[in-house]
Amino acid sequence: MNEQVKKDIISLIENSRDAVVCSVDENGFPNAKAMFRRKNDGMRAIWFSSNRSAIHTQQWINNSKASVYFCNSEDISSLLLIGHMRVYTDNETKQLYWEQGDEEYYVLGPTDPDYCMLCFTAENGVYMSQKKNLFNIDDKMGAVTYKYDKGWCPE
Amino acid sequence: MNEQVKKDIISLIENSRDAVVCSVDENGFPNAKAMFRRKNDGMRAIWFSSNRSAIHTQQWINNSKASVYFCNSEDISSLLLIGHMRVYTDNETKQLYWEQGDEEYYVLGPTDPDYCMLCFTAENGVYMSQKKNLFNIDDKMGAVTYKYDKGWCPE
Repeated sequence: MNEQVKKDIISLIENSRDAVVCSVDENGFPNAKAMFRRKNDGMRAIWFSSNRSAIHTQQWINNSKASVYFCNSEDISSLLLIGHMRVYTDNETKQLYWEQGDEEYYVLGPTDPDYCMLCFTAENGVYMSQKKNLFNIDDKMGAVTYKYDKGWCPE
Repeated sequence: MNEQVKKDIISLIENSRDAVVCSVDENGFPNAKAMFRRKNDGMRAIWFSSNRSAIHTQQWINNSKASVYFCNSEDISSLLLIGHMRVYTDNETKQLYWEQGDEEYYVLGPTDPDYCMLCFTAENGVYMSQKKNLFNIDDKMGAVTYKYDKGWCPE
């Protein structure tokens, strides 16, 4: 994959407020839900916040297989990332990713037992724009280190 | 489910140009792709056209488990339908659903061997708007009979 395509993929992710995130239910059916992208490390890892009691969270606890789909309907580009979703329920991770306004959804604050963080880790992807790009995620791929400074910013 | 919710669901489907349609790949991972909605019979059946050679078409031939996700980001309503996807490759069905402009994608016309029709049949659904509605599709649910008259119109 050339550098421009990598840049286009990262740009699609970072210009998307939300993504459609997919799980597999207990009967083997694919499920989908739009979720706000909280944070991303290039195209390798994407963080979402969620309710621990939500159906899709339970599905990922039982089966971590997941995908994340971004689509820009204006230029008809899309990105499907396939990988695993890990559910974080520890207070350290929850506090690390807590943002102002989250109390609207998790009224008990960063240690609300129904608040959890989800980290999707990509293994493979399909990027469609002018042409189709199939790729594997490797160590050099779109990794950006974030630091926390009143919100997460690329270093 | 009350009549207003049924109407809202049908309205969400019929005001959506496209949907995110999900399959399960050979390794058990959920996959997703935005597809144009060609036609629908209420919320029970939704038709899409596709390439027979496409990865997702092959996935549904091997495993018909599927879901279709509609989302209106303006009023934050969404609909997840869970069911099965059937792939139609016979010329009768392909000719029935052929529309002007399709030759851009299937250059050999309605009998192009790479053109196929996909029919998703819903069994269960989750509709989210002001509140969450879980439902099973039953015989009385949003079924509309379509007739062909220079395009498909509800009878």
